[in-house]
Amino acid sequence: MKLERVLSQIVSPCPLRMEQAKNRVDQLIKPQGSMGKLEDMAVKLVGIYDADFPIIDKTTVIVMCADHGVCEEHVASAPQAVTLMQAINMTKGITGVGALCQSLNSELHVYDIGINAEANYPGIYQTKLMYGTKNMAKEAAMDRETAIKALEIGINAAISAVEKGSNALATGEMGIGNTTPSTAILSVLSGKTAKALTGIGANFPEHLVPHKAEVIQRAIDLNKPNANDPLDILSKVGGLDIAGMAGVMIGGAYKRVPVVIDGYISTISALIACALEPKVKDYLFSSHFSLEKGASLASDLLGLTPFLDLSMRLGEGSGAVLAFPFLKAACDVNRHMITFEEAGIGVV
Amino acid sequence: MKLERVLSQIVSPCPLRMEQAKNRVDQLIKPQGSMGKLEDMAVKLVGIYDADFPIIDKTTVIVMCADHGVCEEHVASAPQAVTLMQAINMTKGITGVGALCQSLNSELHVYDIGINAEANYPGIYQTKLMYGTKNMAKEAAMDRETAIKALEIGINAAISAVEKGSNALATGEMGIGNTTPSTAILSVLSGKTAKALTGIGANFPEHLVPHKAEVIQRAIDLNKPNANDPLDILSKVGGLDIAGMAGVMIGGAYKRVPVVIDGYISTISALIACALEPKVKDYLFSSHFSLEKGASLASDLLGLTPFLDLSMRLGEGSGAVLAFPFLKAACDVNRHMITFEEAGIGVV
Repeated sequence: MKLERVLSQIVSPCPLRMEQAKNRVDQLIKPQGSMGKLEDMAVKLVGIYDADFPIIDKTTVIVMCADHGVCEEHVASAPQAVTLMQAINMTKGITGVGALCQSLNSELHVYDIGINAEANYPGIYQTKLMYGTKNMAKEAAMDRETAIKALEIGINAAISAVEKGSNALATGEMGIGNTTPSTAILSVLSGKTAKALTGIGANFPEHLVPHKAEVIQRAIDLNKPNANDPLDILSKVGGLDIAGMAGVMIGGAYKRVPVVIDGYISTISALIACALEPKVKDYLFSSHFSLEKGASLASDLLGLTPFLDLSMRLGEGSGAVLAFPFLKAACDVNRHMITFEEAGIGVV
Repeated sequence: MKLERVLSQIVSPCPLRMEQAKNRVDQLIKPQGSMGKLEDMAVKLVGIYDADFPIIDKTTVIVMCADHGVCEEHVASAPQAVTLMQAINMTKGITGVGALCQSLNSELHVYDIGINAEANYPGIYQTKLMYGTKNMAKEAAMDRETAIKALEIGINAAISAVEKGSNALATGEMGIGNTTPSTAILSVLSGKTAKALTGIGANFPEHLVPHKAEVIQRAIDLNKPNANDPLDILSKVGGLDIAGMAGVMIGGAYKRVPVVIDGYISTISALIACALEPKVKDYLFSSHFSLEKGASLASDLLGLTPFLDLSMRLGEGSGAVLAFPFLKAACDVNRHMITFEEAGIGVV
C-alpha cells in the first residue's frame, strides 16, 4: 500500500459508539471512575474497533531492525554486528522481547529494514532498503524516497499481521546507535538542543554523552531538517527502524487496530506518524516509562502517558508487549461486568 | 494451622540462589539492568521458590469479604448490603476483579469472613466469624482471639489455594466502609492524625471526609491501640477482611509462594502481616498505585513500590490480579533468555 493513499483513508474511532461505551462503563457495578485508566482504554478500544464488545485474542509485536551510519562517529557502546545477532536471536525467542512474547503468548515479527549485513535467516522478513543509513553527521541519513519506502514497509507489516488474524499490534526496534537519530528528531521537533536531550542509550558511558550530543547537533546543523516536514526530518536525521515503526502505527490505524508504542525510540516514531496524520494518535497506546533522558519530553509532546513504571530501557518492544494484557483486560472488563441496572440495584 | 506455629516456620528466600540468579540476570543478552524491575522480580522469585527457573502457571486471587460496625457512624456512601451483593457477584465473575480474573485466567476464591448477612451461596467459602465487626467508635472492633482466628482463616485460605496447585496468590477485599479501619491502623502505625490521612474511599463525598476522620480519631482515642502490638491494633481498630488478607500473606510466605498486594486496604494488611513477622515482606509484591489518600504513605512504610500507574481505587484485588503477568514474565525472562556466554559472544 502506498503511503499517501493509506494516510488519506485513516478514519477517527467512532465517537458515537465511544460515547455509548463511556455511559455503560460509568454504570458498571463499581464506584464511578474507580477502574481508572482501564476505563479509558475500554472506551477507546470500542471506538477503535467500532464494536461494542471487542475481544483481543491475537497480538503481534513487529520489530524493525536497522543499522545507523552515524555509528562511525562512536555514539554507541556495542558494535553494529549486534543488530543482526539480536535480530536472529529474536526469531529464536531468546532476547528480552522474545522471552516476553513467549510468556505473554504474542506473535513476534522481525523485519530487516536496513541491517548492515546479509540477514537471510529463516524467520526474518526480508525488506532491506539499505545496508544501514548513511552517516547523518556527514550527509542525509537517507533520501526522501527511501524514507517513504520504509514507512510503507511498516504499513504493510501492520496490514499483513492484521490479515493473519492479529487484532492488536506493538512496535519494537533493534538498531545499535538508534537513540542518536531519535534524539536528533526530538531536538528538531521540540526546538531544544541536542545537549539538553541526549542520554546514555544502551549503557553508553556517561562521560562520552557530551560527544554524542555534539554529533547529534552537528547532524542537525549540517542537514537543517524542516521541523514542519516529517519526511524531511525522517530522511535527514532519522533511521530506517524509526521510519518502519512509524509505518506500523500508520498501518495499524488504517486497519483500525490498537498499536502499543514501546519506549523512547518508538515514541519518536509515534511523533513522526502523528505529524504525518494526527488521527493516528487515536489508535496508539503508551506502555512503559522509559528511563532514557528524552523519553518523558517525547511522551509529553505526543500527549500519551505511560502506565507501566518498570525502569526498563531495553527497547525491542519489550515494554510494549507487557501492555497487551491491559488492552485485553480493558475489553474484558467492559464485556464481563454488568451495570447496576442489569444487577437490579441502585447506583452505589 | 495455628498462627504462632506458622509465623515461627516462615523462612527467608534462599540468599545463595538469589545471588546466583542476580549474576545470571546480569549476563543475559541485553544491556545490564535494562529490564529494570523485571530483573529484580526474577531474582526475588528464584529466592522465594528456591528454584533456579521457576514457572508460574496457576494463580489465585483470594478475596476476604466482611462488614464493619463503624458504618453506623455514616462513614461510607454505599449500604452494607452491597458487601454481600458484590461477594455473590464476584463468584459470578461480573465484578471488576471477577472480569479481570476471567481475562487473566486466574482463579478467584471468595471468603465470607464476616459479612453482616447470611451468605450461604455456592462459591463463597463459609468462614464467617462475626456478622460484621463491632462499631470501633464505641468499643473494640473484635476481641483478640477473633483477630487471631481471622488471621488463621487467611493462612488456611492461602495454604488451601497452594495445595490446589496455585503458585502465586493475590489479595483482595470487599467490605463497605473498610477504608475507615484501614486509616485507623495507618494512623496508629505512622503516628499521624486521622485528619491527615483520611480520604474519600469509594467516592465518599469530599465534604463529609472531615466527619469520617473525626470518627476514626474517636475510635483511636477510645481504644488506645498499642502501636507495638499488631494484634492489639487489628482487634481494636481493624477489620475481619483486613485480618484475613494479612493471614493470606503470612500463609503465602509459609508456603513459599509470592503474594501480590492490591491497593490501600491490602497494603495496610501487609503492614500488619510484616509487623507480626518481618520475613513475610520478602514474599510480597506491590502492584498498583492506589489513588486513596493514605496509600502512598502506606507503601512507603511497607517499603515496596507499586509499578502499575492505572489511577485505580476499586479494591477487590482488581489491581493485584493485573500484576500476575509481570511475575510470570519475570520468571520467563530468566528462563528463556540466554547469557552472552551461551550466545558465544562478549558482553555488549
